[in-house]
Amino acid sequence: MKAALYLIPVTLGETEISQVLPAYNRDVILEIKHFIVEDIRSARRFLKKVEHSVEDGRIVDIDSLTFYELNRHTDRNQIGAYLKPLADGNPVGVISEAGCPAIADPGADVVEIAQRKGYTVVPLVGPSSIIMSVMGSGFNGQSFAFNGYLPVENADRAKKLRQLENKIYNEDQTQIFIETPYRNNKMIDAIRISMLGISVAASWCVAAR
Amino acid sequence: MKAALYLIPVTLGETEISQVLPAYNRDVILEIKHFIVEDIRSARRFLKKVEHSVEDGRIVDIDSLTFYELNRHTDRNQIGAYLKPLADGNPVGVISEAGCPAIADPGADVVEIAQRKGYTVVPLVGPSSIIMSVMGSGFNGQSFAFNGYLPVENADRAKKLRQLENKIYNEDQTQIFIETPYRNNKMIDAIRISMLGISVAASWCVAAR
Repeated sequence: MKAALYLIPVTLGETEISQVLPAYNRDVILEIKHFIVEDIRSARRFLKKVEHSVEDGRIVDIDSLTFYELNRHTDRNQIGAYLKPLADGNPVGVISEAGCPAIADPGADVVEIAQRKGYTVVPLVGPSSIIMSVMGSGFNGQSFAFNGYLPVENADRAKKLRQLENKIYNEDQTQIFIETPYRNNKMIDAIRISMLGISVAASWCVAAR
Repeated sequence: MKAALYLIPVTLGETEISQVLPAYNRDVILEIKHFIVEDIRSARRFLKKVEHSVEDGRIVDIDSLTFYELNRHTDRNQIGAYLKPLADGNPVGVISEAGCPAIADPGADVVEIAQRKGYTVVPLVGPSSIIMSVMGSGFNGQSFAFNGYLPVENADRAKKLRQLENKIYNEDQTQIFIETPYRNNKMIDAIRISMLGISVAASWCVAAR
């Protein structure tokens, strides 16, 4: 297999592999020995799940794999070294905690280094809560923006909501953000206070994780 | 199967089904008799391709299917009637020309009607050139915007490029747009003229179709 950096999406929650990932992704995963992962334990769990979904007896030999951790604790100067296997002619995979690597998740910095060094980068297909929420919303899918997390502090969040509201009206751009489940009710209250009414609230699209 | 509106992504170009679509999508497709499609001919071609990818002999009986066309020629007042099968307890599928329905493609209006009427809407997983280009770019994946097509006329396009450039600098937001292959070179020239230099051009992310 080509010595490329493969960006490997994972399931969102406890979904079956075959429901949200193409069969091709398994073929790629089974060829890779070096993985850059957000969390080693959940990456191993995902790889075991992939193995169980393979009907023809191929296995993921977890003990033969090398994992490099990439998250907020990682020293940025170390990331370049994670790409060493590529220089040796071996493929490297990137796996984040949920959905697509480098989208609202770590990975973009390692992709940037790979691109600068001229390595091939191959994004694989998988579930993106962002795209699926826009598809399912009925809101404008010709122009939309993902804004990550909004500020937690009340005044900052209210200000940000007003900025996004302006973009909805002035640019007809669907605005998406992410929120943790335990803060959802508080966020919905903030939207109701900030906005002019229910028809305005209805023009929001929330990408839930 | 549940009487829901299924949003069914298709391949981008001539890719194999198993490379970019989960096996689950086929199971859903094989149960649906009513399809809202951007173009009937290419929807039939896609369904034949799906049938050929099924190993267990299940078929897509094209002659037993009903197709409703949804594109720029469709009378907006007619779209609601396309959802009649849902009222009768039958599932309906939405298929666009490439990638995900309702994303830079028709479909959002029919989803909006279904949501207002309280029908279940189920977006399936498939390839999105937008998400894959952000993943593969190494640009900021915590904040990004898709802007559809930019204006074709020189002065309008230059103005829009400056607006997007401001968003890159002021909001650290990756800007994505779409362009037809035969206008790509002209677009790249326009970006080079508009921007301050190569390092600026490198902070653009183009979602190619």
